[in-house]
Amino acid sequence: MRFDLTKEFLEELNRAIHNQDQNWIRENILELHYADIAEIIDNVQMDGARFIYFSLSEDTQADVLMELDEEVRDRFFNSLSSKEMAGQLENLDSDDAADILGELSEEKIQEVISQMEDDEAAEDIVDLLNYDEDTAGGLMQKEFIQAKLDWPVNRCLVELRRQAEDVEKVYTIYVVDDYNKLVGLLSLKRLLFADPKTKIRDLYNAKNVISLKTSDESEEVVRIIEKYDLVAVPVVDLQGKLVGRITIDDVVDIIKEEADRDFQLASGISEKIELNSSVWRISRARLPWLIIGMLGGILGAQVISGFEVGISQVPALAFFIPLITAMGGNVGVQSSAIVVQSLAKGNDLFGTVRTRLAKETTVALLNGVMLATLVYGIAYLFGNIQLGIVVSVSLFVVIFFAAIFGTLIPLLLDRYNIDPALATGPFVTTLNDVLGLFIYFSVGMLLYHM
Amino acid sequence: MRFDLTKEFLEELNRAIHNQDQNWIRENILELHYADIAEIIDNVQMDGARFIYFSLSEDTQADVLMELDEEVRDRFFNSLSSKEMAGQLENLDSDDAADILGELSEEKIQEVISQMEDDEAAEDIVDLLNYDEDTAGGLMQKEFIQAKLDWPVNRCLVELRRQAEDVEKVYTIYVVDDYNKLVGLLSLKRLLFADPKTKIRDLYNAKNVISLKTSDESEEVVRIIEKYDLVAVPVVDLQGKLVGRITIDDVVDIIKEEADRDFQLASGISEKIELNSSVWRISRARLPWLIIGMLGGILGAQVISGFEVGISQVPALAFFIPLITAMGGNVGVQSSAIVVQSLAKGNDLFGTVRTRLAKETTVALLNGVMLATLVYGIAYLFGNIQLGIVVSVSLFVVIFFAAIFGTLIPLLLDRYNIDPALATGPFVTTLNDVLGLFIYFSVGMLLYHM
Repeated sequence: MRFDLTKEFLEELNRAIHNQDQNWIRENILELHYADIAEIIDNVQMDGARFIYFSLSEDTQADVLMELDEEVRDRFFNSLSSKEMAGQLENLDSDDAADILGELSEEKIQEVISQMEDDEAAEDIVDLLNYDEDTAGGLMQKEFIQAKLDWPVNRCLVELRRQAEDVEKVYTIYVVDDYNKLVGLLSLKRLLFADPKTKIRDLYNAKNVISLKTSDESEEVVRIIEKYDLVAVPVVDLQGKLVGRITIDDVVDIIKEEADRDFQLASGISEKIELNSSVWRISRARLPWLIIGMLGGILGAQVISGFEVGISQVPALAFFIPLITAMGGNVGVQSSAIVVQSLAKGNDLFGTVRTRLAKETTVALLNGVMLATLVYGIAYLFGNIQLGIVVSVSLFVVIFFAAIFGTLIPLLLDRYNIDPALATGPFVTTLNDVLGLFIYFSVGMLLYHM
Repeated sequence: MRFDLTKEFLEELNRAIHNQDQNWIRENILELHYADIAEIIDNVQMDGARFIYFSLSEDTQADVLMELDEEVRDRFFNSLSSKEMAGQLENLDSDDAADILGELSEEKIQEVISQMEDDEAAEDIVDLLNYDEDTAGGLMQKEFIQAKLDWPVNRCLVELRRQAEDVEKVYTIYVVDDYNKLVGLLSLKRLLFADPKTKIRDLYNAKNVISLKTSDESEEVVRIIEKYDLVAVPVVDLQGKLVGRITIDDVVDIIKEEADRDFQLASGISEKIELNSSVWRISRARLPWLIIGMLGGILGAQVISGFEVGISQVPALAFFIPLITAMGGNVGVQSSAIVVQSLAKGNDLFGTVRTRLAKETTVALLNGVMLATLVYGIAYLFGNIQLGIVVSVSLFVVIFFAAIFGTLIPLLLDRYNIDPALATGPFVTTLNDVLGLFIYFSVGMLLYHM
């Protein structure tokens, strides 16, 4: 039942596209799952994509469009005429339609909207475009199923059948009062087993109804859906009126994107880039950290130059500069990683900052002693005992301070509303480099009696 | 409707716990959502946790137990007697019960299982314990709703009502043949609007049924649920018989865990740790990278010592050692981050390795020229032109090679089935440190004519 895209399949497909072989497409593609068809389209040229896409039924087109690689989708969608765009949008869920449309210019949006024949769908999309895309309003869809308190079950079934045509995935029915205010939930399971004459009022669940406001930020959307284990959550406006719902598949996408962004931020990439982003964009996203790192390096050079006399007397001191900076950086990044992750989960760690620090310093002392002993042992084997003492003592001190800064800096950044994921990148490493050098050479001067 | 845990609430609660005030608990806690109750229990002492927990109804207990912080849950569960444990397990979904039980020793598991009164539940749990926890079998639950092909809708409703008592969240009904083989799906929506006499055979959907095998690995589970936008997926055994289902809330947890693990791996932490892990465990998880980093540092010292004569002649050369190693590390990490992310998404990049390299080297040349110019400019301002040339030329070369290694190393690791996320940590930085030093001093010797 599961489809795997092979090289052979792609070769046959490209031949079929070249020969405009509708039969081959019908036999080998049309029956596949839309996610598989999307994967196929991701891997062919634009003319092939059009050929396959327009062989599909309207419903499948909509599903496939939303499964395409974002970059392929934008390219494909932009290759359509305004008339074709309007037709495609009418098949989509309102949130998906608004997402795609939101990528276009204002004039183009107006042009496409004016071409749409389904006024209600057009209105829904225009409405959604008003919300900031990082809020519950921007994430919600207008397709959901609602029932009024006073309906009996049989009336409800009739109404639902009508509504359900537009709604692909039905999990829960939202119960509203006469003013369209959300008052509770009704599971399909409950409805299925109910007597036809029972009123919704006597069936629905008004306890612990979790909803979001249109203005809630996407982090809050993720937090709520995760915390309450929801597959869909209703969205209400300022008056408490039901205006949309957010489903978990959209939330999974947000979770993935945020994890990606944190990973990139911690790797020193300052804006979201993908494999396919342009060289300019990639270059621009990377420069900020590189420049910070370079300024840190110049600061480090200043520190070392302060010990120039020492180096000219004992040039071997210079040998272990990279060891000291690398270890300071490593320990700092390790310490901050755990703090950053906990902060990302919404834990407020500032109250427990002392416990955190106590633990981190214990770990640092432990690892510091082990590594310092190891490096002293190596120096001893090479017969340079005095230098071994300098390196091992300063390594120990550097590890200790790196752990403290690695813990404190993300907490401080978070306090001042700067994304703490930045900390595992530039801040901690640069600071620890400079500090580590200062410690190393100070210890060296001291022990060499210079 | 949404609850926020405040300091004041906790203070009142602790007073109520201290006074064993059942009334306060009833009025302020019992009506809350189970996720909120779990959050409250996470934040009180063990005796308070027990007091609150055993005031709850059995159903709520089960929900709360699964929402607790993992560490709190283990501690709480271990504080129960075998008899109490058995009672709690009977209320849980089979997959959750197996997860909790799996943490105990073999003898303890036997003891608890023997105390369970519900034989069917016990059997389900024992069955699930046989599967590796990182496979679909280990992730699935035994609670799902199935219907036979030959049932008419009204018989189906009766059977479903019976089955549905055990199944908390019903999304889809799984249709099986007489041998219990999964043959298709039936949505509740469809069933809701069907004529009572219609046979399931004429209602169900046999097309594109996505299922998993018990032996499928958790990565495959995530990939399938994500790709096909599922909220639940049926699991079949080797014979194609329906044995369980996996729901999306469990998959969201896996996605989060994998993202956390990648982030930690890239930060140089070699085994999964949490804020609450013991000092020993944290220390052990961090040592491997620190030791690799230290060996890299010693290798770097060897390289520099080869240029000892040069340093004693021009001690200023030592000043820019940290700048060179930091920049090599930074560029390497940036280059590998994107590759690691794409590999994690299941993209096979080895086919496009040339395109990747071409792009990375272009970005590197671009950034290299800018940064080299910048550093030369700074050196010029400080009046040390010859040193400025050495630093800027070698910086340019180092950035170039760091980008190449940063791209190639994760690809190679992936080729040999080593987690490429390791690359953004130790491998790339250490290699680039050593290589960078060699380039820097070679350029220095050359330009100073030593």
